Amino acid sequence: MQASSILKPISEQLQLVDDRLREFSESSELPSLKDLLIHVFDSSGKLARPALTLLTAGFHPNDGEKVITMATAVEMLHVATLVHDDTVDESDTRRGRVTVSSSWGQHTAVLLGDYVFAASATYVCSTGNIRVIKRFSETIMDLSRGQMQETANSRDIKNGMDDYLERIYFKTASLFSTSGESGAILSGASEPIVQSLKTYSEKIGLAFQVVDDVLDITGTPQEIGKPVGSDLLNGVITLPTIYAIEDSGCRKKVRLFLEDPSNTELHSEIVDMIKHSDVGERSYKYADQLVEEAKLSLQALEDNDCKRSLLDLADFIISRNN
Amino acid sequence: MQASSILKPISEQLQLVDDRLREFSESSELPSLKDLLIHVFDSSGKLARPALTLLTAGFHPNDGEKVITMATAVEMLHVATLVHDDTVDESDTRRGRVTVSSSWGQHTAVLLGDYVFAASATYVCSTGNIRVIKRFSETIMDLSRGQMQETANSRDIKNGMDDYLERIYFKTASLFSTSGESGAILSGASEPIVQSLKTYSEKIGLAFQVVDDVLDITGTPQEIGKPVGSDLLNGVITLPTIYAIEDSGCRKKVRLFLEDPSNTELHSEIVDMIKHSDVGERSYKYADQLVEEAKLSLQALEDNDCKRSLLDLADFIISRNN
Repeated sequence: MQASSILKPISEQLQLVDDRLREFSESSELPSLKDLLIHVFDSSGKLARPALTLLTAGFHPNDGEKVITMATAVEMLHVATLVHDDTVDESDTRRGRVTVSSSWGQHTAVLLGDYVFAASATYVCSTGNIRVIKRFSETIMDLSRGQMQETANSRDIKNGMDDYLERIYFKTASLFSTSGESGAILSGASEPIVQSLKTYSEKIGLAFQVVDDVLDITGTPQEIGKPVGSDLLNGVITLPTIYAIEDSGCRKKVRLFLEDPSNTELHSEIVDMIKHSDVGERSYKYADQLVEEAKLSLQALEDNDCKRSLLDLADFIISRNN
Repeated sequence: MQASSILKPISEQLQLVDDRLREFSESSELPSLKDLLIHVFDSSGKLARPALTLLTAGFHPNDGEKVITMATAVEMLHVATLVHDDTVDESDTRRGRVTVSSSWGQHTAVLLGDYVFAASATYVCSTGNIRVIKRFSETIMDLSRGQMQETANSRDIKNGMDDYLERIYFKTASLFSTSGESGAILSGASEPIVQSLKTYSEKIGLAFQVVDDVLDITGTPQEIGKPVGSDLLNGVITLPTIYAIEDSGCRKKVRLFLEDPSNTELHSEIVDMIKHSDVGERSYKYADQLVEEAKLSLQALEDNDCKRSLLDLADFIISRNN
């Protein structure tokens, strides 16, 4: 299965979203701001979230306008988050391009992120739908809360599965959920359909983050675009580590490493231990289960191109390697 | 004239705003976030913007609920802006308290600011008024744009009055304008009244920033809580400098200083020159004119306690020394 076949039912609308993102980035009268916007939107990714908004709008006839606006807004919000995340993480590059914070300074990155956050909110406002606008603002709160919780609870292996699931909901699944829920709402779908698509979107959002966290250990640096085991290096406890420290030997090593994060030899040793254990398999199984729950929540929906794409998208999330 | 007499018609409502701000800061379940929120809202200022929202709502009978929510939101937005501004400026203290960025790190300050920005937007959403929600999002864009423009155009004395007025509109007057406009809208006032109060609020916002920029030169470090001439030191060209460099001797010195900002002796010399010139007087005259225009825009409004307070508030903005 390929991404292009999943996106086929919405390829024209996705192109319109791409056009609007370009129009937005070229619209600023302040030259320095324009350059920055073009830089961050040029390097934008696979438009996974806008695709979700467009696909979830496929279960009720609608003129597409509000949905395309919303799909543009969710990508803008995602980009704003990346700009601030790179500032917080002090990352030098993202997907092969320099980050705003490393090249233009943290200060510019803070203000640029604020600007794009606010701009995304004005797009959502123009849908005129209060429920969607409110959900969108709450999602911005969730995103920053997730990051803060990750920082606050780092280096502490006492925080287990509940803390992990809450964090990845705030950090990732909340925006997936809002992307899907808002597509359904703005298309005019009935409440049961909205709830099904919201549940689906939240579940694949959680699965997406679990896979991300497994790839952090099992991927190659080329595939994941960062050093292997970066999460542990930064003291962030994710699902693979939670599973790994069930073994008391590994738990001892992880504890030692978190007390002395400069011990890179120990870090490599732990990463190797996890790689050669069943942790990767168990983590994928967990993500698989989330994907199955996501697909199950679509059961009552009419069978159409968008539904088939959503089912394929759920599987694609598990099979990706970057 | 005293601030307390200006606030008399809205003292009860202002207390409710203060209560809601405290409730918000104490509501977070994440302990580290709660501590941060209590810190930034404890040090919050004079509630000038909420007061404006409450006073401009005094020209049409209303139950007060939406207006109080909005007044709470404008203060939250103001606080979020301060958190990010202190990060951008690398300030150690604000009004005698340590800043979040200096004490908890820039990273925490970025995320905390995002969280409070988003939280303020959810409060505005609960007014259910799309026009107000959209205006609020645009204001967040204006605020970050104003800061970016200030950075982009710093150290360049070619940017004159037009650039200055645009910058202070984005940076300060936009939020004043939105605070006043939204009070009027949410009270249910007619469109001509909304427009009068919006104009009033924008003008006093501009005057407020002009006075701030004059005090930066004419105030004592105790009054203004920062070194005298900080704007010039940071390369920010404000009204006093724009007036001062009409004199070719002063222009030469300013140009030299902007080329070598480490020359503190030259900085002191320029500040002294401006202090002993008519620049302060001329700048106040400019602010006075804005205040007169603000008061004039209220002419058609019925005479009541809120109108008298708005007239007094306009004068108070000129007379303040911190």
